[in-house]
Amino acid sequence: MSSSHNFFTTGTYTSLLGVVENCNSFKYDEDDNTLYRFIAPTAATSGRKKDSLIGLVRSCDVAVLEQANTLVQVPPLDIDKDQRTIKFSRHYADAASRSEVMRKVLGQLRVQQALPTLAKWRDEQYPIYDADGLHASIERAASYTFGIRTYGVHINGYVRCNVDEAPLGLKVWIARRSSTKQTWPGYLDQMVAGGISTELGMMETVIKECEEEAGIGPELASKAKPVGTIQYFTQSEYGLQPETQYVYDLELLPNVDPRPNDGESEGFYLLALDEIKNKLLNGEFKPNCAVCMIDFMIRHGYISAEDEPHYLAIIDNLHCSLPMPGIHFLK
Amino acid sequence: MSSSHNFFTTGTYTSLLGVVENCNSFKYDEDDNTLYRFIAPTAATSGRKKDSLIGLVRSCDVAVLEQANTLVQVPPLDIDKDQRTIKFSRHYADAASRSEVMRKVLGQLRVQQALPTLAKWRDEQYPIYDADGLHASIERAASYTFGIRTYGVHINGYVRCNVDEAPLGLKVWIARRSSTKQTWPGYLDQMVAGGISTELGMMETVIKECEEEAGIGPELASKAKPVGTIQYFTQSEYGLQPETQYVYDLELLPNVDPRPNDGESEGFYLLALDEIKNKLLNGEFKPNCAVCMIDFMIRHGYISAEDEPHYLAIIDNLHCSLPMPGIHFLK
Repeated sequence: MSSSHNFFTTGTYTSLLGVVENCNSFKYDEDDNTLYRFIAPTAATSGRKKDSLIGLVRSCDVAVLEQANTLVQVPPLDIDKDQRTIKFSRHYADAASRSEVMRKVLGQLRVQQALPTLAKWRDEQYPIYDADGLHASIERAASYTFGIRTYGVHINGYVRCNVDEAPLGLKVWIARRSSTKQTWPGYLDQMVAGGISTELGMMETVIKECEEEAGIGPELASKAKPVGTIQYFTQSEYGLQPETQYVYDLELLPNVDPRPNDGESEGFYLLALDEIKNKLLNGEFKPNCAVCMIDFMIRHGYISAEDEPHYLAIIDNLHCSLPMPGIHFLK
Repeated sequence: MSSSHNFFTTGTYTSLLGVVENCNSFKYDEDDNTLYRFIAPTAATSGRKKDSLIGLVRSCDVAVLEQANTLVQVPPLDIDKDQRTIKFSRHYADAASRSEVMRKVLGQLRVQQALPTLAKWRDEQYPIYDADGLHASIERAASYTFGIRTYGVHINGYVRCNVDEAPLGLKVWIARRSSTKQTWPGYLDQMVAGGISTELGMMETVIKECEEEAGIGPELASKAKPVGTIQYFTQSEYGLQPETQYVYDLELLPNVDPRPNDGESEGFYLLALDEIKNKLLNGEFKPNCAVCMIDFMIRHGYISAEDEPHYLAIIDNLHCSLPMPGIHFLK
């Protein structure tokens, strides 16, 4: 059997279910024989029987990983074509050495233009967790190729107003992504969002990104309230992405305006949820930001089971269970 | 392979993860050969290929369903021991006739004391949905035997206070279930909660239960804010229960006290989240009410990824994906 492959579309939608399914677009099937399992062998001392699944690689990307193996003296990856598994060679026995060798080979693949996703090089290290802890870190732009689980923070900035001004008496700050961003240029986004790299925790990422993306200082940013996660398994032309977003709500006073700081955002709009719903259905949001917006609408009671026929299916798509171990050690 | 079977425990817990796993205790495995699939054949006109799974029956309960088949002239259930499937006989071709025959046979099994769960007869009809709509309704007490997906509403009543009085500046109304209730007598519960029966919608159930259980009138009850769902697959000595709870938050003013009205609750306590956490770990809550309480703690930022090492695993257990079609037609 084969897992289903539908890439992002950017058209319009007839329902919010279509919007969430466009992001949670990959249905993982353990028996999918078009995928290689990226695994971390279980430590002999751990008492566990099974290796950890830490990523999923498409067959079409295996050739470039074989090429990567030729770029350093000791090939970093054991690729087993019978078992359809990939793991780090035993020579690289800890997270530091695995991260270091991957930095080298991915850097060379980038120069050789051997892997299209590396054109979007971010210079950010993303963590890979196995069942015991940090297994390695790799360049963010390569995360799709390895299909590793990734993490981010999304911050919904909102402002209270009169109920006759906007539904529920609130409006939400929406960012427009810069037209020069590597991914999804010009699309709508949360006020602030960012990936969690190896060296930072969730709240540290919130504070860093609030400053960088919206000119919101640490004192205000630290008031962002954690309200749960959204989780989806998505795919693109670059590969697979099982992702967890830590979601925060941050109430802003009417006199506080987010302002573009680092050029990631082109500008901000303060919108009522009715306007935002139209833009969601119109395909104007980056797909995972659309999902975060719909989660906000559900948590704040803008979407209800009475009015939304796909209420349960939408919520299912906000909370996809992922087969890889999640972050499980605190900083 | 066999799905895992762990029944509720009522001890104490070392972590909130243990509390949610105690409720979301059944890991469904499609290939579990200790279960019979309760199915609804696909209507020829629907264009779908697969029958709908509408329930899961344990092998140990099949004998009593065979007994049920002897109690009326036309046996209601086709039980296929080779395929391990159960479905309604073609003779009962619509929801009304299926519900009527089940009412008869379950009533007789109750009198014969043939099925222990029927000692907890509720006289409430629970809906069973197939992929096309309402397939049948059956007595609530028999829902575990058939392993049908069930639905309820849980209303978190809370009161704002000073932040130096209680964490986050809020306290939550907790009910103690009457010592004479059929299920979980004396355990702690949400302020108001109730099952959704065939004839009522979600908000109608909220309004009905607020009045009955807490003496809260329709005007105030209708302000309950829908904030999403929790979903788990649980099991007990009576069978399996894949359940969806529609969750509502209702802010009460400090001068409004819920009061026992119909004898379902023995009394109410207004507690800070720290106290509630202790009672959760102490096993004082009904298991699914504990899960709803933990969902409240996550949505309101009392539990954060920084402080709770099992944050992601807890959230996974609040949003179990269920194999049966959910409510998909609005009233």
